[in-house]
Amino acid sequence: MPKSKKKRPAGGVKSWQARLTMDADQITAAFLSSLDVDSSLWQYDIAGSLAHARMLKEVGLLTAGEFRKINKGLMSIARDMDAGTLAMPIELEDIHMVIEKTLIDRTGQAGMKLHTGRSRNDQAATDLRLWARHSIHVLSQAVRDLQRALVDVARHQGRLVMPAYTHMQRAQPILAGHALLAYVEMLDRDHCRLAGTLKRLNVCPLGSGAVAGTSLPLDRRMTAQLLGFDGITRNSIDATSDRDFLADLCYCCAMIAVHLSRWAEDWIIQSSNEFGFVELSDAYCTSSSMMPQKKNADTLELIRAKGAGAIGSLAGLLALLKGLPLAYNRDMQDDKRFVMPAVAAVHQALVVARGIVATAKFNRQRIESDINAGFLDATSMAEYLVGKGVPFRKAHQIVGRLVSAAQANGKHLAELPLPALKAACEKFESDVRRYLGAANVVRRYRPEGSAGLAQLNKQLAYWKKELE
Amino acid sequence: MPKSKKKRPAGGVKSWQARLTMDADQITAAFLSSLDVDSSLWQYDIAGSLAHARMLKEVGLLTAGEFRKINKGLMSIARDMDAGTLAMPIELEDIHMVIEKTLIDRTGQAGMKLHTGRSRNDQAATDLRLWARHSIHVLSQAVRDLQRALVDVARHQGRLVMPAYTHMQRAQPILAGHALLAYVEMLDRDHCRLAGTLKRLNVCPLGSGAVAGTSLPLDRRMTAQLLGFDGITRNSIDATSDRDFLADLCYCCAMIAVHLSRWAEDWIIQSSNEFGFVELSDAYCTSSSMMPQKKNADTLELIRAKGAGAIGSLAGLLALLKGLPLAYNRDMQDDKRFVMPAVAAVHQALVVARGIVATAKFNRQRIESDINAGFLDATSMAEYLVGKGVPFRKAHQIVGRLVSAAQANGKHLAELPLPALKAACEKFESDVRRYLGAANVVRRYRPEGSAGLAQLNKQLAYWKKELE
Amino acid sequence: MPKSKKKRPAGGVKSWQARLTMDADQITAAFLSSLDVDSSLWQYDIAGSLAHARMLKEVGLLTAGEFRKINKGLMSIARDMDAGTLAMPIELEDIHMVIEKTLIDRTGQAGMKLHTGRSRNDQAATDLRLWARHSIHVLSQAVRDLQRALVDVARHQGRLVMPAYTHMQRAQPILAGHALLAYVEMLDRDHCRLAGTLKRLNVCPLGSGAVAGTSLPLDRRMTAQLLGFDGITRNSIDATSDRDFLADLCYCCAMIAVHLSRWAEDWIIQSSNEFGFVELSDAYCTSSSMMPQKKNADTLELIRAKGAGAIGSLAGLLALLKGLPLAYNRDMQDDKRFVMPAVAAVHQALVVARGIVATAKFNRQRIESDINAGFLDATSMAEYLVGKGVPFRKAHQIVGRLVSAAQANGKHLAELPLPALKAACEKFESDVRRYLGAANVVRRYRPEGSAGLAQLNKQLAYWKKELE
Amino acid sequence: MPKSKKKRPAGGVKSWQARLTMDADQITAAFLSSLDVDSSLWQYDIAGSLAHARMLKEVGLLTAGEFRKINKGLMSIARDMDAGTLAMPIELEDIHMVIEKTLIDRTGQAGMKLHTGRSRNDQAATDLRLWARHSIHVLSQAVRDLQRALVDVARHQGRLVMPAYTHMQRAQPILAGHALLAYVEMLDRDHCRLAGTLKRLNVCPLGSGAVAGTSLPLDRRMTAQLLGFDGITRNSIDATSDRDFLADLCYCCAMIAVHLSRWAEDWIIQSSNEFGFVELSDAYCTSSSMMPQKKNADTLELIRAKGAGAIGSLAGLLALLKGLPLAYNRDMQDDKRFVMPAVAAVHQALVVARGIVATAKFNRQRIESDINAGFLDATSMAEYLVGKGVPFRKAHQIVGRLVSAAQANGKHLAELPLPALKAACEKFESDVRRYLGAANVVRRYRPEGSAGLAQLNKQLAYWKKELE
Repeated sequence: MPKSKKKRPAGGVKSWQARLTMDADQITAAFLSSLDVDSSLWQYDIAGSLAHARMLKEVGLLTAGEFRKINKGLMSIARDMDAGTLAMPIELEDIHMVIEKTLIDRTGQAGMKLHTGRSRNDQAATDLRLWARHSIHVLSQAVRDLQRALVDVARHQGRLVMPAYTHMQRAQPILAGHALLAYVEMLDRDHCRLAGTLKRLNVCPLGSGAVAGTSLPLDRRMTAQLLGFDGITRNSIDATSDRDFLADLCYCCAMIAVHLSRWAEDWIIQSSNEFGFVELSDAYCTSSSMMPQKKNADTLELIRAKGAGAIGSLAGLLALLKGLPLAYNRDMQDDKRFVMPAVAAVHQALVVARGIVATAKFNRQRIESDINAGFLDATSMAEYLVGKGVPFRKAHQIVGRLVSAAQANGKHLAELPLPALKAACEKFESDVRRYLGAANVVRRYRPEGSAGLAQLNKQLAYWKKELE
Repeated sequence: MPKSKKKRPAGGVKSWQARLTMDADQITAAFLSSLDVDSSLWQYDIAGSLAHARMLKEVGLLTAGEFRKINKGLMSIARDMDAGTLAMPIELEDIHMVIEKTLIDRTGQAGMKLHTGRSRNDQAATDLRLWARHSIHVLSQAVRDLQRALVDVARHQGRLVMPAYTHMQRAQPILAGHALLAYVEMLDRDHCRLAGTLKRLNVCPLGSGAVAGTSLPLDRRMTAQLLGFDGITRNSIDATSDRDFLADLCYCCAMIAVHLSRWAEDWIIQSSNEFGFVELSDAYCTSSSMMPQKKNADTLELIRAKGAGAIGSLAGLLALLKGLPLAYNRDMQDDKRFVMPAVAAVHQALVVARGIVATAKFNRQRIESDINAGFLDATSMAEYLVGKGVPFRKAHQIVGRLVSAAQANGKHLAELPLPALKAACEKFESDVRRYLGAANVVRRYRPEGSAGLAQLNKQLAYWKKELE
Repeated sequence: MPKSKKKRPAGGVKSWQARLTMDADQITAAFLSSLDVDSSLWQYDIAGSLAHARMLKEVGLLTAGEFRKINKGLMSIARDMDAGTLAMPIELEDIHMVIEKTLIDRTGQAGMKLHTGRSRNDQAATDLRLWARHSIHVLSQAVRDLQRALVDVARHQGRLVMPAYTHMQRAQPILAGHALLAYVEMLDRDHCRLAGTLKRLNVCPLGSGAVAGTSLPLDRRMTAQLLGFDGITRNSIDATSDRDFLADLCYCCAMIAVHLSRWAEDWIIQSSNEFGFVELSDAYCTSSSMMPQKKNADTLELIRAKGAGAIGSLAGLLALLKGLPLAYNRDMQDDKRFVMPAVAAVHQALVVARGIVATAKFNRQRIESDINAGFLDATSMAEYLVGKGVPFRKAHQIVGRLVSAAQANGKHLAELPLPALKAACEKFESDVRRYLGAANVVRRYRPEGSAGLAQLNKQLAYWKKELE
Repeated sequence: MPKSKKKRPAGGVKSWQARLTMDADQITAAFLSSLDVDSSLWQYDIAGSLAHARMLKEVGLLTAGEFRKINKGLMSIARDMDAGTLAMPIELEDIHMVIEKTLIDRTGQAGMKLHTGRSRNDQAATDLRLWARHSIHVLSQAVRDLQRALVDVARHQGRLVMPAYTHMQRAQPILAGHALLAYVEMLDRDHCRLAGTLKRLNVCPLGSGAVAGTSLPLDRRMTAQLLGFDGITRNSIDATSDRDFLADLCYCCAMIAVHLSRWAEDWIIQSSNEFGFVELSDAYCTSSSMMPQKKNADTLELIRAKGAGAIGSLAGLLALLKGLPLAYNRDMQDDKRFVMPAVAAVHQALVVARGIVATAKFNRQRIESDINAGFLDATSMAEYLVGKGVPFRKAHQIVGRLVSAAQANGKHLAELPLPALKAACEKFESDVRRYLGAANVVRRYRPEGSAGLAQLNKQLAYWKKELE
């Protein structure tokens, strides 16, 4: 793995600003080169070449000696890449060419045989699939880690009764853990989507050549197996021009990012002075350069922002592919410019989110002090009447009027005297008190998936097992 | 199913133009209403209500008599909807309210009990999942139909040798059927994606209430089973605010549309005067209002255009969901404005594409007359040298020079005299002729997935079985 | 102007659902037809034809009698369109064909001459420009109306001191009117953008024919003048394939919608129970079907949602145009599917927003009761020290520590005793009180554009003049 | 200006791959930092600070000595940035902090006064406007340069008669220069759009503080003037949270990129073997790694691809801004991730496009050899009949039938014998020959903006003057 060796960000050297000041030839060279993004693929390119070379040896297109030279040459290139010392002249355009050229410099004739039966088109497609496969593993793990962090908080702080919101208005009382597990559900669909993407992509295009295959007797199943693929692609034209797996991955990233943005929005609002429900660790907040009192949930805002980046990447990648004639077109070189930043940003966001969740505290006192504001028990009161045979629509109207009356008098529903209730509907009895107040309401939730304690415990048990 | 009863398109009555001329109150009412899109959900809304009512009866919240009345009322509403005679005042805002209100008008007390333990939030989520499920079935079928049409043409016209292109430049010779099956591969991934979406979405949110569930003893598994769901959602907050399944469906549509756009682009170009490879049935072409000679592949262009619509829908839907706090927000009412047109357009495009494919003819004479233009056999010549022990990189250079020489003299590679070949590389022998010319090249393709006859036959056999 | 004659929305008759159940021929006909969107163009199409016919008469390509017949025929069609009685068989594909075909049916030979020197391509381009021009007028007016409503509220309720937020955290005190005028600024840029779009689009493409012009002696400047254009397009290829003006309009809509979404987000949060700053008129709120106590700011949420629709439209339209070869391609038929809904939705949102603003009330009591929470005066305290010669960075640190101390003791900065202040920095004197407390801070703002009263008054005067 | 000092692209050091392997603390630090993009702003940040400092001195908030120290310190930082030697620890998060921190290290007390009356919010907004202004200048220049190159080719090679296409089908004959000038028109709207954006953005936000302004007596008009702004922003809340100018710039880039993509698509197709109209300089083509004969128009494909990138950037930036509450939120830190790559890519594409255009050759022989294929003169023939009094619709039908007859016999319209013409319509006379054949048609074009020689010359004269 390459390690960052220097303090200065890349931007300082070859900045967006600098790009505007190069001369026309430099610009054309820079324009054609994808080294700034595809050098990330070096490990996969070398792995693919090793497998290809070994297969060439097995089918007799390389001698054992040539294979040894290639093998040794590729390993030396890997060491130099890892050390960050390999020269990558921009004129070579991409990492594939850099590696092949270097190999030929180091091994002569043997290196000139590596590209036998191979094209940049099937080679790049293979490298990208290997990269995407690794990215999915990393993302899936990060999704799972965040799920575990959410479940942990749900287990330890989740029995607190708090308001649920719809339309940003107080709706019904819930246990805090129930809200946390809602995000766990979203992330689980993300995990499932990543798995589906992995399954579809894990077939090997190597041996498809530039577009039509080759007349050489390659053993495609051997290279596929060496590289850990489940099988081989069926059609050389499709294999060299298909980028569905990158679009799928981009879409997975967009959905994760959208889910994270909803959570971030919730917690940004809930950590405002006015709500005060959630307290974030200082490690995830920053101050203001001008206002000395500020403690801003910046990290959450940046997480929210990543949704936009991923949406842009997805829309861009699809616009790239739309209307492209078969087969490979150079437009596809830009595929990495959409998917690589999206994967990196979403991965970062997942890791950071986990840290935020793991260190967050619900402000029990603040939440409880205000828990009976907003008539969270109005629905429960209507359901009480339903239990007494009042049609729900009628019960809804009755309680609606009682809410208005209570509001006008600055009272909670539980504080209305029984005669006042009976005046609204004669079915009210004193047992209605057991349906009122947030704590009572939460206790009464019945069906599976509701926001009460029994359901929460069941869900916690489910996730404990699922995420082990 | 509602049938179109009138000749005038909707646009004439409530056109985009008209919308700019209403007064403020009308505009506000129109703005709040989603009847223009969600009336499509009526069948699912009634199905959902029937299941809910039956469950309410089973758990004792409705009497048998009330259930009978509701049942009968809903069936009468279904008949009126089908006939297109039900009044839908815009003030009722959505189809759910129209149906409940009408039911109460027709059944009184009984109807007022239908909404027991239910919210618009879990109701709409259920309806949308039923709609999406049906849409997936319809789309999957249309995908399969188009695949079959492509395989048919590949079987009957697919043995023709034609050029494959990369970068819109002639690359290598292939069998026409191989190119057709490339689209079949794309569509197969689409089919797989639809199946994954279906699997994830087919759980029932009913019983989740507005956000927190309910205190009433609903039997969620019963309604789920009655409606053909595989199970129930686990978390009421997520269940009422999740629209992943619509995003997934939108993404499936976008990918189908992108695939179709690539095919359309290919055939638009290939049916130009300059290419002349494909001849489309007149049924799918139109003329010009000004130019009497024109036969335009308009239908293909509109198919290509649908990629843009689906990309816009997907980007828009994700932007809608990004940053939405939990749980249900009215923003989500607009979800249908993205996904419904995308599904309809992509379905249309699939059906139309099938017709175009089924009636298209490859112009064998035109293709064959020019098949040896563009040095399609250059790679094969280089691979010949590889067989003689020349390193591929060297062989590539040698052939590159021969191509230049041939081009300068207006000859094909096969027309170069052996001495000229030998001057370039002494390994050339007279057997090189068997590697030259498009027909020879196609015959020599070796690995699985290549563009030759053996591979085509294998793929045709595979698809025959798969699509049966 | 067409008026809506019926109660049932279009969706019930030709719903998205219905579209999935048509047979293949119906689907192909529906697929090719754009009548569902372009019938909105009928007025512009007729206006364009009237101008074209009059010019044809002037240059001698129509006789006076033929012109009279055409004129009369077109007027009768206009009446029928207005009454909603013109038949529009889907097979005629678009409104232009419907009108020409009807005209020929009604006028015979004369009608057959209308399309002289004209193509559907320049005709449609002209109609679209006329439509876009009208749309810009309507949108500009609605933007101005909303600006006026905001300025009105700023004038009448705007002197209230309230907290400004950055990162959703309390930042500094401002006058409420200053926040309202921030939206007025955004809308002013929108107004400016619309004006720029109008200026660029107001040239007439008529006379450009299908792509190359015509050999007939048309007088393009005459039709341009008759139709109120400022001039004519310079290049027939560009004129018939240019849709920049629709993209510009879509972009204008997206920016307006994004601005409205920011305002909507602010007011959704500020009308929550926890903030309670803004009270919306009941006319713009709705209740819940399940929860009797709810008053949701649904209208604001739908306004926020329109940002997503406009983003999707814009991304889609650009993806449509990307990579289209010259000149007209049928893909462009779908341009209306992006821009028309965007214009209609944004127009509605503007009109509804104006109603919301005009009827909103700031809750002065609630805002004032909590105005000194959040240390809004911390920056002012630091600036006090700057006035005493303390470098700002140092002052920032000193006040930061005082805020922590005050917070720990549950006090405001103004409540800290002078000795405690002096312990932190000896420059503090008792006059620091005049810098503390929100009201004092607001009074002290100095530069133009700040959030104080003098600046507000100046801005109100500016807008009064500008919006008159 | 920073110059690139090293051979290795940034990607090798801090690659997308590497980003997936950092630990959680590194990831959080990297996540919060925008140095990788905003270090490009250093020149603008220093320029802004110099102006701010000078103003502080003028209003008495800095002494002359302090100002001198700050001035000197900033200049030394500029030198170090330019040399690429300034340390930028990621923990400082952004370039603004790097510069202020370094200044304080170098100047002590004086440096601690620089941020007086300033916030990161108004500072960053100012830097971004300065950057955007410079970007617009650079882009405008590149647009103009490309226009000039197109006009040059139109002047020198543009009198060649070639087919115009609609729907990728041969439509009417045109002069090649007329097609080239169509792109010049598109680019001119881009130039106009950039000018409008510049005009709207060129007001200075400095002095707006964090959100509300300041109590210090800043002279905003002085800094604005020093920095070349036309005026100052009117509202501090809007000034610190407005990113319209970046969206405008992104939109300008998207439109330029869409225009370039249309041109690229045209030339990719026209440089195919089958068309063979345009020959590109080898400098802008690349070969294949596998196929020795290939000469691919890769550069055009990459230019086409940039449309997708710009669409993604625009959609992403708008999704970022949508629904953001006032005022500044950290989400906005990511604004640069959308706009900076878009500007750089579009600028590169413009420069490269100019090179391609300037070195391209139309293949006159190839174009002329086939110029009468496709019945390009059919419209002209119909217009001949119009001149004889035949209604256009009837003439259109007559010619349509003649085209079918000619096609069936493998003839051009000009080759049909007069009796055959007369049989179709008795108005035909022998003078019809003067209307047939591409060269004749082009000669007859009449209205302004048509594709003939007189119109081309007029347009060339117009552009010569406009672009001087």
